[in-house]
Amino acid sequence: MKLKKLKQVRVPGFLAGGVACGLKKKGVKDLALIVSEVPATAAGVFTLNQVVSPTVPISRKALQTSKTSRAIIVNSGNANAFTGEQGVKDCQAVVAATAKALGIPVKEVLTASTGVISVPLAVNKIEASIPRLVNQLSPKGWVQAAEGILTTDLVSKTCAVQYGDVVVGGIAKGSGMIQPNMATMLAFLASNIRIGKFALHKALKEAVDPTFNCITVDGETSTNDMVLLLANGTAGNSSIQAGSKAYRDFVTALTHVCKTLAFKVVEDGEGATKFVTFKVSGAKTKQQAERIGKRLANSLLVKTALFGEDPNWGRIIAAVGNAGVPIKPEKLEVVLNGTRLVKNGEHVKGVSASALRKKMKNKEIEIAVGLHLGKAQAETYTCDLSYDYVRINAEYTT
Amino acid sequence: MKLKKLKQVRVPGFLAGGVACGLKKKGVKDLALIVSEVPATAAGVFTLNQVVSPTVPISRKALQTSKTSRAIIVNSGNANAFTGEQGVKDCQAVVAATAKALGIPVKEVLTASTGVISVPLAVNKIEASIPRLVNQLSPKGWVQAAEGILTTDLVSKTCAVQYGDVVVGGIAKGSGMIQPNMATMLAFLASNIRIGKFALHKALKEAVDPTFNCITVDGETSTNDMVLLLANGTAGNSSIQAGSKAYRDFVTALTHVCKTLAFKVVEDGEGATKFVTFKVSGAKTKQQAERIGKRLANSLLVKTALFGEDPNWGRIIAAVGNAGVPIKPEKLEVVLNGTRLVKNGEHVKGVSASALRKKMKNKEIEIAVGLHLGKAQAETYTCDLSYDYVRINAEYTT
Repeated sequence: MKLKKLKQVRVPGFLAGGVACGLKKKGVKDLALIVSEVPATAAGVFTLNQVVSPTVPISRKALQTSKTSRAIIVNSGNANAFTGEQGVKDCQAVVAATAKALGIPVKEVLTASTGVISVPLAVNKIEASIPRLVNQLSPKGWVQAAEGILTTDLVSKTCAVQYGDVVVGGIAKGSGMIQPNMATMLAFLASNIRIGKFALHKALKEAVDPTFNCITVDGETSTNDMVLLLANGTAGNSSIQAGSKAYRDFVTALTHVCKTLAFKVVEDGEGATKFVTFKVSGAKTKQQAERIGKRLANSLLVKTALFGEDPNWGRIIAAVGNAGVPIKPEKLEVVLNGTRLVKNGEHVKGVSASALRKKMKNKEIEIAVGLHLGKAQAETYTCDLSYDYVRINAEYTT
Repeated sequence: MKLKKLKQVRVPGFLAGGVACGLKKKGVKDLALIVSEVPATAAGVFTLNQVVSPTVPISRKALQTSKTSRAIIVNSGNANAFTGEQGVKDCQAVVAATAKALGIPVKEVLTASTGVISVPLAVNKIEASIPRLVNQLSPKGWVQAAEGILTTDLVSKTCAVQYGDVVVGGIAKGSGMIQPNMATMLAFLASNIRIGKFALHKALKEAVDPTFNCITVDGETSTNDMVLLLANGTAGNSSIQAGSKAYRDFVTALTHVCKTLAFKVVEDGEGATKFVTFKVSGAKTKQQAERIGKRLANSLLVKTALFGEDPNWGRIIAAVGNAGVPIKPEKLEVVLNGTRLVKNGEHVKGVSASALRKKMKNKEIEIAVGLHLGKAQAETYTCDLSYDYVRINAEYTT
């Protein structure tokens, strides 16, 4: 199977668009819509935060009660989370207005929000803008949709690939409040493949697990995180069964799109200057490897050392020892961008400090930690912690 | 029982001192010694990090194998952690040199280190300075000792109280790598009370639990954390039994000293501009209340909002929802410096935003979270996350 990367997102049978409706400052896009021209199967994964936006239960229920889905309406600038009964009504109103403007059933509309928490949604601004947004829909409109879902993001995040007649594309937003917990941030994916709902959900879980679920910017899990995927069958293939070769090909393409978008989220992490990969190997279980990876990726001392371009393996070791996973310090190994710093639990002598510091100037840093206790491994992706992270989150209510 | 606060640390029957031995930059004190003039009972609590400095097992073993202790020797500037076999030998050499200079058994010497991890200890510098340090010991020398144990701390931390004939005093260091896990940072306490070893250890645990164990600066637990307590019996009281009135009085005094020192650690947290108390109440268990308190106190988004003086209850709610403790969002209550922002899971209308912002300018912030699920509660103490935290930890290897 050969995966062709597409320069722009355009998925056969899908239209998209984005407009400014006035939730964010004047003229900045804050409302996005993705529509399938024909009924599509759909799947979603959602945040595990116990405080959720009504967009989470409302989208989940729509997926459960309707065989097909047609549209995803998303606003940025306001998360509509922790907004009580009014928040639920507001979310229902947005869904209803979208269904009406598109002439489709309410239960075929999925919805998401992102932005400030616990502020009432100016639902009238959204309702007033939906007809304009629908008029503007086009096969090329993913660019505008990707802009419409941003918050503190500096860049839009899009990705699309093709193999044979099948196209998989998507958009994502996120640069803060990023630590996946089964699902994270917002990402909206579409494909023209024909696939049943069960297999589609399974494929989405398989693709999200090693991608979105392996990134963290700041250890925070949002109230609104979700990843939605629509598949409208216009590729004309015979419907795909889970486990088949065709299914695996689709998962490969979908994982590529998810990984590309997830990496773009990390690269655009609030204040980020580095893209950092932690490879933890030799663990007894995958869960333990992941736990150590997350502990490293969320350690303030490790993250600030990365920003300072300081090859501070002492902080790495201290964080590994604090992950709540049984380790044997005397077996530890640490390799930083290819240079072995720690072996058999001791610092390797003779490593050139200046060569090491030079390597820390790379934009991409890879830190491998070997536990030598088992065969399980995991990768975690993160960014450093800089002055700008503090500035972005201290100066503005986000 | 009336507790009298003393202006300076001076504990009858104890001598202390601090010198510069050359581990830190020229002339900065980096070696401290506390000595009881007579054999004292001793107790200690230690880090739960799995990677530890040899000072941890060596001090623990000394406490276990010797009925009495006489001295605590501490260096700053180098944690002597993750330094392999050589680190163990170096630690033993420091203890031996101290015992020799004081003319006491090796097993009566306790020891601690703090500073950079995974760098060999310049033990010769310490050994060369110990005789000078011993000569310099004096009842007033706690000031110098408190200076000798600092790392990134901006201020020395001392506290002493008296009730009747009993004096309890101590010193602490810490401003980064601060999240207690049964014990945290370095603190060295002394009293002239007469008390058995079992009761002393119990008293120390009782005092550490609601004080040092309730603070966090950055969610990091050091490889070297310990709290040591010596009681030399020179007050002449009859030995105290756990549970008695005299025991409770001692615990009260000890807790006061621990709390004062713990608060000073938070106030001097790296880059801190605010002292923040999280009061979580209405939990089903104390452990759950503590877990939510720690989650709030370690949330980057909450901490940066505090630095930005932004009354961002949305971030508070999101963090509560992510603590891994079952909650009912519809029962949540949030009170910020006395102003109720959230009640019954909804934002309280009519709160003056400008009054709220004004309150955020206070140096001391109290955030109370009510879960309304049970009767357990806990307090957690922390500071905000500022540019200076990033600067301190990015610019220097600590």
